[in-house]
Amino acid sequence: MPDAVLERAGAQLFARDASGASALERPFTGAAFRDVLAQAEQRLRQLLALPEHYRILFLAGGAMHQFSIVPLNLLGRASTVAYADSGYWAKRAIGEARRYAEVAIVARHAGAVPLAAPACGSWQLPADCAYCHITPNETVEGVAYPELPDCGDVPLVADCTSSFLAAPLDISRFGLIYASAQKNIGPAGLTVVIVREDLLERAAPLVPAPFNYRLQAEQQSCVNTPPTLAIHLAALVFDWLAESGGLPAMAAANRRKAARLYAAIDGSGGFYQAPVEAGHRSTTNVRFHLADDALTESFIGAAERQGLTNLRGHRHLGGIRASLYNAMPDAGVDALTGFMADFARYER
Amino acid sequence: MPDAVLERAGAQLFARDASGASALERPFTGAAFRDVLAQAEQRLRQLLALPEHYRILFLAGGAMHQFSIVPLNLLGRASTVAYADSGYWAKRAIGEARRYAEVAIVARHAGAVPLAAPACGSWQLPADCAYCHITPNETVEGVAYPELPDCGDVPLVADCTSSFLAAPLDISRFGLIYASAQKNIGPAGLTVVIVREDLLERAAPLVPAPFNYRLQAEQQSCVNTPPTLAIHLAALVFDWLAESGGLPAMAAANRRKAARLYAAIDGSGGFYQAPVEAGHRSTTNVRFHLADDALTESFIGAAERQGLTNLRGHRHLGGIRASLYNAMPDAGVDALTGFMADFARYER
Repeated sequence: MPDAVLERAGAQLFARDASGASALERPFTGAAFRDVLAQAEQRLRQLLALPEHYRILFLAGGAMHQFSIVPLNLLGRASTVAYADSGYWAKRAIGEARRYAEVAIVARHAGAVPLAAPACGSWQLPADCAYCHITPNETVEGVAYPELPDCGDVPLVADCTSSFLAAPLDISRFGLIYASAQKNIGPAGLTVVIVREDLLERAAPLVPAPFNYRLQAEQQSCVNTPPTLAIHLAALVFDWLAESGGLPAMAAANRRKAARLYAAIDGSGGFYQAPVEAGHRSTTNVRFHLADDALTESFIGAAERQGLTNLRGHRHLGGIRASLYNAMPDAGVDALTGFMADFARYER
Repeated sequence: MPDAVLERAGAQLFARDASGASALERPFTGAAFRDVLAQAEQRLRQLLALPEHYRILFLAGGAMHQFSIVPLNLLGRASTVAYADSGYWAKRAIGEARRYAEVAIVARHAGAVPLAAPACGSWQLPADCAYCHITPNETVEGVAYPELPDCGDVPLVADCTSSFLAAPLDISRFGLIYASAQKNIGPAGLTVVIVREDLLERAAPLVPAPFNYRLQAEQQSCVNTPPTLAIHLAALVFDWLAESGGLPAMAAANRRKAARLYAAIDGSGGFYQAPVEAGHRSTTNVRFHLADDALTESFIGAAERQGLTNLRGHRHLGGIRASLYNAMPDAGVDALTGFMADFARYER
């Protein structure tokens, strides 16, 4: 979270107003919360330059809820959905979707190092296909799609959790995107869904009411009590983004931070190695490993002693992963690259 | 929220620790959050004197999600579920359950004033019945069950949202209870589910993974990122409850607060009238109306000018509703009864 948001949150959320209520306690049906919700939506609309025919939903839960809720809402009369397998989180989404529909895997990552996103050239979508799902940024592998597939009339659906608000997004290429909040939006327990209006009519009868996109669109995300505190924090983050130059400024900063870190890896004479192919490297989750894997634990421990935390790679892949979400300042990257240079000098 | 919790939350949740991370930002897989989660569970176990064979789950969303998720988890091979219709929220739960199972309404409130909970004497449960669902406290009507039904071997399931932690609860009478957080637990977006272990094996294949009780029990509520901030706040509330004498002390305070308010109503010479039968009156949601309904708006407006807010009755019933959750101090009730006496003197 940006410093400015933490400061405002501390000042705004737990202080009592004239009526004695803190932001935490205001009823979701009251004007005070509805204003926050409307502001959050309006601000997000502006940040994304969202076309009129897309709706923003603020839903409880995380992206993994949407792994089930997307097929339950979008399958309609179709029996098949298309998924691209780009890595760990795509596989998780596929696993959940299989419980609701026939899943056609229309593209796969090659699996070999250097890692890359699935090639987007020629996806063969099944004739009876409700949507095509991608994971534009794979946080575990540190792989990002360099381009989007062309799915014709089939709505493109994306789990944008880790890339949302990190750069401008041409939402008109998508039928629906979703992003859980705990990366660039706010605290865990909130997921933003952005959906094209014509897709609101397909919900299965079994969708729990608070996860029915059409109902939530009709009732401004207030079918039931929404995660009000998380939405309030998200509104503060959206304000901060707007004040900080919006998504173009975030994209420039994120490119700059990632470029510095990849340069430190690639310029280490092989001491550090990035397993992802140039052009497919995530600017959000930068992965690398030490040529001598026996030094990995020592690297992580020494980094932590310098306040450089959360560098351990995902348990499935090991190595190092540095996550450069919007709130990570340049100074954080500089501290890491400085430490990396020192560590390499010392151990070499 | 209690003052002590708001103060601690302001100090703890948005401040950065030595590593530069606020509580908001800590990974749910890390030791810092896991400690908070374990403490929250342990403290809640102690408060409820929970038997070993019950599991506590901290899930995303609200009680309305559970309206669907309970039947999806508990129906198993049965086709029928039993519900008691005690009022507004029971009806909402019934409406959702009908999309997953045959619903037998085994008891109804009489509907006439004075309002009362359904009589618990002789419920005829269907032979093939997965569970029997009640709503022990109806927040809209202000009606509470004075006793629990005896459902024999059929698990009793309860939406305890508005009464949870307001008094000791003999959990061994229930198969499962659930309570969304925004009453006595913490912020909206979190629901506590407490379930008897033998009921964990019935989940339908269609349950979204983060709502599968068995999976969540196996993975300590961390199948996916849980609502970490809300859980942290809940942990602070549980601590405050323990320091404040636990649930017996809450029950005594809540009885005292409610008794004072009902006494002010009943002692007003008919100026204020409570529509709920003695013995069935909620100690949490105290409903009354003015004998001259034309004065209702004037009452609400004058109260708000004195900082007495959120007194408007539910839109379906009108009148006045005062909610006396745990955090409402005696002084709040005294302010209200004082205002009521002044208003009656002035208008009479």
